[in-house]
Amino acid sequence: MAEKSGKMKARLPRGFVDRTSDDIRVAEKMMATIRGVYELYGFEPVEQPMIEYTDALGKFLPDQDRPNEGVFSFQDDDDQWLSLRYDLTAPMARYVAENFEKLPKPYRSYRSGWVFRNEKPGPGRFRQFMQFDADTVGTPGVAADAEMTMMMADVMEALGIPRGQYVVRVNNRKVLDGLLEAIGLGGDENAGRRLTVLRAVDKLDKVGVQGVRDLLGKGRLDESGDFTKGAGLEEAAIGKVVAFIESGAADAARTTANLREVVAESPRGTEGVEELAQIAALAAAAGYDDGRIKIDPSIVRGLEYYTGPVYEIELLAEIPNEDGQIVRFGSVGGGGRYDGLVSRFRGEPVPATGFSMGVSRLITALKNLGKLDTSDVVAPVVVLVMDKDTESLGRYQKMVSALREAGIRAELYLGGAGMKAQLKYADRRGSPVAVIQGGDEREKGEVQLKDLIEGARMSAEIADNAEWRAARPAQVTVAEADLVAEVRKILAAQAEDRSRAG
Amino acid sequence: MAEKSGKMKARLPRGFVDRTSDDIRVAEKMMATIRGVYELYGFEPVEQPMIEYTDALGKFLPDQDRPNEGVFSFQDDDDQWLSLRYDLTAPMARYVAENFEKLPKPYRSYRSGWVFRNEKPGPGRFRQFMQFDADTVGTPGVAADAEMTMMMADVMEALGIPRGQYVVRVNNRKVLDGLLEAIGLGGDENAGRRLTVLRAVDKLDKVGVQGVRDLLGKGRLDESGDFTKGAGLEEAAIGKVVAFIESGAADAARTTANLREVVAESPRGTEGVEELAQIAALAAAAGYDDGRIKIDPSIVRGLEYYTGPVYEIELLAEIPNEDGQIVRFGSVGGGGRYDGLVSRFRGEPVPATGFSMGVSRLITALKNLGKLDTSDVVAPVVVLVMDKDTESLGRYQKMVSALREAGIRAELYLGGAGMKAQLKYADRRGSPVAVIQGGDEREKGEVQLKDLIEGARMSAEIADNAEWRAARPAQVTVAEADLVAEVRKILAAQAEDRSRAG
Repeated sequence: MAEKSGKMKARLPRGFVDRTSDDIRVAEKMMATIRGVYELYGFEPVEQPMIEYTDALGKFLPDQDRPNEGVFSFQDDDDQWLSLRYDLTAPMARYVAENFEKLPKPYRSYRSGWVFRNEKPGPGRFRQFMQFDADTVGTPGVAADAEMTMMMADVMEALGIPRGQYVVRVNNRKVLDGLLEAIGLGGDENAGRRLTVLRAVDKLDKVGVQGVRDLLGKGRLDESGDFTKGAGLEEAAIGKVVAFIESGAADAARTTANLREVVAESPRGTEGVEELAQIAALAAAAGYDDGRIKIDPSIVRGLEYYTGPVYEIELLAEIPNEDGQIVRFGSVGGGGRYDGLVSRFRGEPVPATGFSMGVSRLITALKNLGKLDTSDVVAPVVVLVMDKDTESLGRYQKMVSALREAGIRAELYLGGAGMKAQLKYADRRGSPVAVIQGGDEREKGEVQLKDLIEGARMSAEIADNAEWRAARPAQVTVAEADLVAEVRKILAAQAEDRSRAG
Repeated sequence: MAEKSGKMKARLPRGFVDRTSDDIRVAEKMMATIRGVYELYGFEPVEQPMIEYTDALGKFLPDQDRPNEGVFSFQDDDDQWLSLRYDLTAPMARYVAENFEKLPKPYRSYRSGWVFRNEKPGPGRFRQFMQFDADTVGTPGVAADAEMTMMMADVMEALGIPRGQYVVRVNNRKVLDGLLEAIGLGGDENAGRRLTVLRAVDKLDKVGVQGVRDLLGKGRLDESGDFTKGAGLEEAAIGKVVAFIESGAADAARTTANLREVVAESPRGTEGVEELAQIAALAAAAGYDDGRIKIDPSIVRGLEYYTGPVYEIELLAEIPNEDGQIVRFGSVGGGGRYDGLVSRFRGEPVPATGFSMGVSRLITALKNLGKLDTSDVVAPVVVLVMDKDTESLGRYQKMVSALREAGIRAELYLGGAGMKAQLKYADRRGSPVAVIQGGDEREKGEVQLKDLIEGARMSAEIADNAEWRAARPAQVTVAEADLVAEVRKILAAQAEDRSRAG
């Protein structure tokens, strides 16, 4: 860790990243928009801490040999295991169970925050990442699931994704269970094989229909030469599964009719189809059957705790993903019904449904679509330090204060260097204006204002015949008393240039 | 953990808390204000992840026997120790060192976020809490420290704390070092005793002058009967320390003159006094010498990494603290110069200064001062579900959508109960209006609007002779086509009531 020189190496553990100003600003902007939609739907913010008792998180109980499998865990003073949350749903379930009597029910809430996975990181896969969830707890009615799908669609529209460039796909775990029963994989003894089948179906968008066929049968050899063992289904069963995932039709009535046939012999499957039909009807009544919300039998969703409807929001635009490949961007969020999570704590049924937006994925997509712009954030005006005696510093400080009081971001140069270095600093900061007052100017009660944006443009000698490009003076000398007004003028001219440039 | 019934108990580990809607909204509001001030000063947001290599955090290296002492730590796959950050400064230092060449210098940045302490929790003391920091890295000049003190003062004003109800107190570690030299506690061999003396001085506001005297001498017995061993200083040395901490005068020139005398024989101490004098001069030049910024020799600040000026912002108002005691509220933030933190990674001097606002403490204070109000957040309008057939649900859904499109928070009741339960739900939500349409109204193309705020007021039968209190009708029947306009009218009337009331 320590280098030969004795100094430590500054580095982050794998899978963790710093957030730059631009990252933070686009995230804040995007999340404010999402929050606005959740609020409009009547959801209230509620947040849980990042650390919970490991057993309260459920799924990932720490293994005695490898307590950190999947989650970051540690033992408390009293030897109980604590873990960093791996999603926002499990802690929310604990919260609702703990405060059940106090909360209005059905209980609509939303929350954003960091979650942690102790897994191997990769491109676009981090060990700390942000989610933004909304959940409704306390109602079994699929109207709540339907509302979630509409809210996801509304989030996309609020973020500026045009209709037709996204789709919310809806399926139902009960229907999938019906399918698995239909191919003879019911019962506890087939739990492992059921999972293999669902995983194969879940890969449809990555490996295509033939890939799924292979994964359902003997197995699949991918391009890199890796072999994935298959579920070992008979050809007839494979045919049934493939027919199932291909049964999605343009209109929901047709799709549900197809599904009804496949799971006809499974009461649970049939119940699931009826729920899907009801979601489709509610979506249609609200006008979301124009391609925004679709019943799609190929949607599985990974998490084991889903018990009914599952839904996923997909961006259809072909834009670069985190690996830089130009592909149909795919899922940016999803969720479903999880009737067991809160019940674990209550000893009574507490149905619930909700979803999670993947904040980083969505930012990547929106950036590429040009929907996240922070160019309205103007860097600070820099007041240069030409004389370093306390009195001069005081005068510069006053200029800075006057600018700030007028709502203009401004800073005093605090380094130790000469004018050239100071202007280089201002340039590196993206500063719009430098304020300069040496002894001569001070005596005359003047300041020099350097328009750093215009200056940069002029020195780059952009050939452009548009009239508005006519150069402003890159430097002006003004009365010290007019400092704020003159800086404001330059900032306004720069803003106009920006809006014209578009 | 599991109860007899087999169900798990929903509970949080000690020292962790959930945040309610109100907590989150006041925090967001307050932090937006603080962010505004930091931005005006030219600081840029940059954030580090919550997990770092333990050695990069410095101070708290994990002990082999108790790896969790003070921090939450765990071993990575490659056996290296990772820790949850215990403050925002150490990770920021790692970040700046890692990206040193790319960053403009001096580098102004700010960040907010959760930090973690694996310590015994108590009232107002949590194991996860939020800080909001600003730092300037890369300049040794005390103009940077002076700027920090002014920015802290500006934050208070932006938050609505009146001038005179807060003060930024400034001291210098170099002066404290000079004092320690003057009483014969220089040298490595006295490191432990120096710490005991500083801790005693740091307790001045809690134990008073006599308490500090005891802690500097043989020790102190507190009211609960606990004895704290003292530093064991001679009477003469104790006198010098007490004279030092009492040397703060109304004006800075007097204070620095006093200090100059105490540390006259220590070059380091004298350097520290000159720095304080310069900070005072810069504060005066900017007009902050009106009681907003004061030189105060009794300020120590706990963290070991400070190397020069230290500063603390104190609220003078007597308001309840987290324990419910009415006291002078005290410190809500502080910081200082830490020239060693970034240097550790660079093998070259990288001076830096910055501070941290304690978000939870500040919220407690502002709430008590009535400076954080979220009454402008209006709960959603609830559309009741009177008929449950899909067609009726579709109609209700459309009403909800129409309200949302008009920017009015609205929700469809998603529970399973009758009208009475639905109105109870709306009441529990603090809902302003309930929308009701049964079969009769539907036939006539009408809806009923119930003004729940007016209804609550009327049923509480408040006797009030003010004319504006004249009752509005608590329930009206309107044409379905006028739903949005009529709801808007009721909301406007309610808003007017609120603004008149207060």
